[in-house]
Amino acid sequence: MREKFKPKPVLLVALGGNALIGKGQPGTVEEQFDNLKIPVTQIARLSRDYRVIVTHGNGPQVGNLLLQQECCDTVPRLPLEILVAQTQGQIGYMIESTLDEALMAMGINSQPLVSLISYVVVDETDKAFKSPSKPVGPVFTKEKAATLPYPTLKTPKGYRRVVVSPKPVTIVEKREIKTLIDTGFIVICCGGGGIPVVRAGRTFDGVDAVIDKDLASARLAEEVGVDLFVIATDVDGMALNFGKPDERYLTSVSLEEATRYILDGHFSAGAMLPKVEAAMQFVGDGGKRAVITRVDRIADAVAGKAGTKFVLEKE
Amino acid sequence: MREKFKPKPVLLVALGGNALIGKGQPGTVEEQFDNLKIPVTQIARLSRDYRVIVTHGNGPQVGNLLLQQECCDTVPRLPLEILVAQTQGQIGYMIESTLDEALMAMGINSQPLVSLISYVVVDETDKAFKSPSKPVGPVFTKEKAATLPYPTLKTPKGYRRVVVSPKPVTIVEKREIKTLIDTGFIVICCGGGGIPVVRAGRTFDGVDAVIDKDLASARLAEEVGVDLFVIATDVDGMALNFGKPDERYLTSVSLEEATRYILDGHFSAGAMLPKVEAAMQFVGDGGKRAVITRVDRIADAVAGKAGTKFVLEKE
Repeated sequence: MREKFKPKPVLLVALGGNALIGKGQPGTVEEQFDNLKIPVTQIARLSRDYRVIVTHGNGPQVGNLLLQQECCDTVPRLPLEILVAQTQGQIGYMIESTLDEALMAMGINSQPLVSLISYVVVDETDKAFKSPSKPVGPVFTKEKAATLPYPTLKTPKGYRRVVVSPKPVTIVEKREIKTLIDTGFIVICCGGGGIPVVRAGRTFDGVDAVIDKDLASARLAEEVGVDLFVIATDVDGMALNFGKPDERYLTSVSLEEATRYILDGHFSAGAMLPKVEAAMQFVGDGGKRAVITRVDRIADAVAGKAGTKFVLEKE
Repeated sequence: MREKFKPKPVLLVALGGNALIGKGQPGTVEEQFDNLKIPVTQIARLSRDYRVIVTHGNGPQVGNLLLQQECCDTVPRLPLEILVAQTQGQIGYMIESTLDEALMAMGINSQPLVSLISYVVVDETDKAFKSPSKPVGPVFTKEKAATLPYPTLKTPKGYRRVVVSPKPVTIVEKREIKTLIDTGFIVICCGGGGIPVVRAGRTFDGVDAVIDKDLASARLAEEVGVDLFVIATDVDGMALNFGKPDERYLTSVSLEEATRYILDGHFSAGAMLPKVEAAMQFVGDGGKRAVITRVDRIADAVAGKAGTKFVLEKE
């Protein structure tokens, strides 16, 4: 009897900003290409056993573009949606070409690979629109901040622009991405959480907002049917009492436990919380396993040997 | 007898910079989206009868990014390859979302559509590398130009940076683009002529250069098998004695005639010449018909009612 054809499982890897710019680095192009080799070499190897989707953050890159706009009065300023699109081009190219090289080094020359522009619908009635909360771009003095044409927030470093960060509703290119992975493509997409748009009848309008890339990735994962979701960042996984003497990393957590830890205030809003929420959303939506792990341990996390694993219920 | 399945012919439309920023416009985002509706509405209608590839220029957009870099000393400068990648993100998003809207307005909701990052291999022994010739970015005074870390050239407006503009050798994503159009996707790609890279063994290295987008489009057309190649620009077609009292637009030209007109010096190096060369290359490589036309007459040009048509030999 012929063995039934079983397609490879789908793996989604969401790369954090530190996959490109390390702590304390100014973020030259050479540094970004060098840093990328660490996750990308692992992703190339994993592509033998998985259909792979790669998403990525864009915090430092979009911050730099905002900073350049502040400096320069002679060029029309572009809204945040366009800057996000620019970073998708930049980072998409860097990941794609690094992955191309890693595959060639493995002797794989015919793996189809694309880096897509992605835009993501948000809901204009999302309550996030009432309270800009996400700091982006450069740090200003209090005096300079008062002169700026947009809201700012006092952060530990100084005043920064704040933008709204609505929940992702749907990835516009979801059907295309599904077709591509089913045809055997590796797909790089949803950079920076996607270009945020609201749907108005038959049109899309870009909005001055940023979407959390891990939440957008979880949404994409549900829409295209991902089996395994890896969130790659700069820490070993999810820790209780992070940064305190009794800090403790967890290797495995159920939805119920994770909910309790959130309520107990273990995770900071701008850092670990959206990752935990994204991992929970994925597992809650029927995904098999989500893992939060360090960028250099993606392959170990896939093998169940690193990171914090999120499951519906513990066995 | 069953009719033999005949796939739709492949149409490649190369959009010039004026498809986004009109003459004398500063180039705000609203203007760019508005301008794009003119070619994109036509492309949406043509997609019923053709498999469509859209490529585009990026001159003003990459110029603005260069200008912003000049203004701002606090952010690491990015090489031209990365700026080209950024404009692919920006313009790819603008074309894709405008096309999405045009298709929805026609009641078409399921047409797969992607905008791809594309990089293009150039030959490091290309003699273009010995003589930077293409002006890019802002205009400087003679004094400022002397302080810049790269070569500049005196142009009618003032001193401008010049970069090399090597010939495109191959589009790295050609197989992916071929698969996509064969699967029924509309593909937006090769923005700004593609991100220029040289191949070094198993690696690609970005180079500080720009590739002519019409020549890159002609190369792509040959590599994926395009039937009809439309170069959309801001003039009616190819003119003899352009700008002179005896200016005369041609409706049709053979390879032999076009070669003679080039030798007679009818076309300027920075404007019409690469378009004529791209159209000639396409027809010479076996393409059926190339047309140079105005952005608002793409559909007429496809129907044979506008522009200058390039054919191998006149009937």
